[in-house]
Amino acid sequence: MAKPKKQPRPKAETPKGFRDYFGADVAQRDAMLAEIAKVYHRYGFDPLESSAVETVEALGKYLPDVDRPNAGVFAWQEDGDGDWLALRYDLTAPLARVYAQHRNDLPTPYRRYAMGPVWRNEKPGPGRFRQFYQCDADTVGTPTVAADAEICAMLADTLEAVGIGRGDYIIRVNNRKVLNGVMEVAGILDPSDPEKFAHERGIVLRAIDKLDRLGPDGVRALLGAGRKDESGDFTDGAKLGAAQAEVVMDFMAAKRDSGLATVARLRDLVAGSPMGEEGVQELETIEQLLIAQGYGPDRIEIDPSVVRGLGYYTGPVFEAELTFEILDEKGRPRQFGSVAGGGRYDDLVKRFTGQEVPATGISIGVDRLLAALHAKGRLSAAEAGPVLVTVMDRDRMADYQAMAAELRNAGIRAEVYLGNPKNFGNQLKYADKRDCPLAIIEGSDEKARGVVIVKDLVLGKRLAEEIESNEEWKAQPAQQEVPRIDLAAVVSKYIGETEKNLREPRG
Amino acid sequence: MAKPKKQPRPKAETPKGFRDYFGADVAQRDAMLAEIAKVYHRYGFDPLESSAVETVEALGKYLPDVDRPNAGVFAWQEDGDGDWLALRYDLTAPLARVYAQHRNDLPTPYRRYAMGPVWRNEKPGPGRFRQFYQCDADTVGTPTVAADAEICAMLADTLEAVGIGRGDYIIRVNNRKVLNGVMEVAGILDPSDPEKFAHERGIVLRAIDKLDRLGPDGVRALLGAGRKDESGDFTDGAKLGAAQAEVVMDFMAAKRDSGLATVARLRDLVAGSPMGEEGVQELETIEQLLIAQGYGPDRIEIDPSVVRGLGYYTGPVFEAELTFEILDEKGRPRQFGSVAGGGRYDDLVKRFTGQEVPATGISIGVDRLLAALHAKGRLSAAEAGPVLVTVMDRDRMADYQAMAAELRNAGIRAEVYLGNPKNFGNQLKYADKRDCPLAIIEGSDEKARGVVIVKDLVLGKRLAEEIESNEEWKAQPAQQEVPRIDLAAVVSKYIGETEKNLREPRG
Repeated sequence: MAKPKKQPRPKAETPKGFRDYFGADVAQRDAMLAEIAKVYHRYGFDPLESSAVETVEALGKYLPDVDRPNAGVFAWQEDGDGDWLALRYDLTAPLARVYAQHRNDLPTPYRRYAMGPVWRNEKPGPGRFRQFYQCDADTVGTPTVAADAEICAMLADTLEAVGIGRGDYIIRVNNRKVLNGVMEVAGILDPSDPEKFAHERGIVLRAIDKLDRLGPDGVRALLGAGRKDESGDFTDGAKLGAAQAEVVMDFMAAKRDSGLATVARLRDLVAGSPMGEEGVQELETIEQLLIAQGYGPDRIEIDPSVVRGLGYYTGPVFEAELTFEILDEKGRPRQFGSVAGGGRYDDLVKRFTGQEVPATGISIGVDRLLAALHAKGRLSAAEAGPVLVTVMDRDRMADYQAMAAELRNAGIRAEVYLGNPKNFGNQLKYADKRDCPLAIIEGSDEKARGVVIVKDLVLGKRLAEEIESNEEWKAQPAQQEVPRIDLAAVVSKYIGETEKNLREPRG
Repeated sequence: MAKPKKQPRPKAETPKGFRDYFGADVAQRDAMLAEIAKVYHRYGFDPLESSAVETVEALGKYLPDVDRPNAGVFAWQEDGDGDWLALRYDLTAPLARVYAQHRNDLPTPYRRYAMGPVWRNEKPGPGRFRQFYQCDADTVGTPTVAADAEICAMLADTLEAVGIGRGDYIIRVNNRKVLNGVMEVAGILDPSDPEKFAHERGIVLRAIDKLDRLGPDGVRALLGAGRKDESGDFTDGAKLGAAQAEVVMDFMAAKRDSGLATVARLRDLVAGSPMGEEGVQELETIEQLLIAQGYGPDRIEIDPSVVRGLGYYTGPVFEAELTFEILDEKGRPRQFGSVAGGGRYDDLVKRFTGQEVPATGISIGVDRLLAALHAKGRLSAAEAGPVLVTVMDRDRMADYQAMAAELRNAGIRAEVYLGNPKNFGNQLKYADKRDCPLAIIEGSDEKARGVVIVKDLVLGKRLAEEIESNEEWKAQPAQQEVPRIDLAAVVSKYIGETEKNLREPRG
């Protein structure tokens, strides 16, 4: 047998751009995903969990750069010379592959939801990680905009289900066809050259997408010759004529007080473009369907300034924005911004099958949504720790374990201290670190008298910031002696009351 | 702009050895993980979700072959020349990295649970996938066997919580130190040469591990000169003398009717070996702790024939086996076998920090546990589909959506048919494919009369295997006309009764 090589001590670090999630962060995300799944499921969507690993070929078209398979995704070659494999970078490309692969077994339309991590091989930054959660719902195989309207209604229900109150969010709906129509009317689009069409539309889309940040004048500059920013850097523009640019600006400003008024204004703007008129008609139908179900402009509205970055959208696009203000890193108030987006994409499956398969869907940024709930004070930073059964006499471990078992059987989170019990102060420090609400103490004296001490650590912490000795600590009023036989009942009552207090609405 | 390359149509396939999970498979696994998490949490364990990607260096020691970083794991090099990264292949190696990295912020002992996919770059086979779920609980930072006993008790509670009845499983406990002691007494171990020690112990462990499959004579042969199997292949043996081999055989057969009798027998076998005596003492303490909490030999027993493959275990080892019989692929009855295993490993963190950090834990094979519940008929193959609101008049989509919304608000899973509504038969085929329990029908006639038709599809399927036309279908008795205003109430009542029927115990 060969001698094992002596290795240097490895670094205990996640790879750059990755992180670990502990305790409450994991539990709260799980709870949120379960809540979202409940809504998706109630709408008739079925869960799907596709493999995290795909062939680069299956993901291919949507890679940032088809000539460099490793850009944007984490990719490797099987056995050094086999297929190129990669971690999925979103949940939409895998859905297209799954639907193409299993379409004969799946119902049509196929409504599915998926939740899980995706991976991006991008430069990490503060708050930007290379692994994060997405939570998608899509309807594949139907062209009707009733499917788009349903997705918007479901998104509103979902946001409310996870704790975003009505009035704290708005879902904005637009339609790519309307923008195409506007560009056709303005003479910007040259339908005879599809490549030029896509390129120019891309520049215009990117300009519109900056309305929030740059304001109308900035967008106007980007639609025209170009724009120099504060640092002096110059961004090339779309080179539209002034009149053409004004048509696009009119489109972005087409939002009116009611959805139907916005629709009327858009209909004026696209008059003469069949594609534009079709898009306006779709928006009108979506609006009517939503109004009939009670989703008014306080929740969902048509807003022509929404474009969404992704090139693959072909019809309606949606975006959910949280409208309350938070303080940014410099302490300035700003709107929280987008937490979900989606739209109709009719070509994703086609590349596998050659057949048009219309689809529409939404993706929720779960991590951002959690951050929003934290910012609103709707989630606590830490969850309550277990009730700690302390160890006063290490020979009676079985007694303490039996107490913990009793508490658990009563549905209470509980554990026996399993560190070295010699130093009682360490047991208290441990309880403090874990945010334990109660400590249970049974020394030989208590044992002989058939009682246990139940110590309220929350109250105890408030009463005394400094604990010098076991004796002093035991003298605090935040503890009571109860018959051993009543342990579970007393603790249940205490925990129940604490939870009730915690659940009172705050702020 | 460069012309995009024309690409051949990609194959719509998962990579070899990977698969997708649909509908009930996803929902049932999620439900099981949630149930397991609830038990782990009640025992005081905190959730941890480490990144799926680790540096190969952090995983390194436990790779099957340190000289070929790509063997066993899916690995790639960052930017072609940076760190080697890899997908985690279990949840234990990442725990060691996490504890070493965050030990100053974590409580000690640190009880954590983790659930999620792991990836193995191994040859796939029938039922063997390269991505699968693990579900672990570990206690890091304490040497007390009370932690091991707790893990065993928790495992029993967990199996019962997910639906494995008492009597259908047994948790077996052994201790590596006892085996080491036996080998020391038999003169097999030469403590002066640690490498030879590890190598010879490995051969003996592998032989013992085959007791179930080969029986005592087969193991005896493997402990001695070697064994020729039915195909004529020869496996080299451990080359023990006959007397030495008998000591090992005695050890494996040391199980007695009660745990304490087994402990007494083991104590005889290791007399004179300090390590062996320590191991027996640990088993006795575990037994006492478990008995005191009510975990008798009907649930957890000491069984010296359990060895567990992994080389890193240093003390107690555990294995949960399901004891009921299922039929194998050839129709022969066989025991279902192992669904969880674990043990104490005291050296995993040390390689990062240089300090001994004792740890113990368990890993549950979630997919096998789900298969077991399916085999026992405890999980249905498909979950119920949504109530389907059919589309009789495509201009009244808003009406149908409002019906679905009403049903959802009453907590009922419901959707409007969103395929092409022209062919009503397609709507019924869709309902059939989705296992919809009910269809709701509102044509113009019903609309005028203020009623809707509620069609029982489950009963309907039983009554008529063939449906020729819409009219004939409507004549079936499995449907009732109800006032439109009563829709949600009638459907609620129906769904409630169906669920009650489904929940009746089967078989």
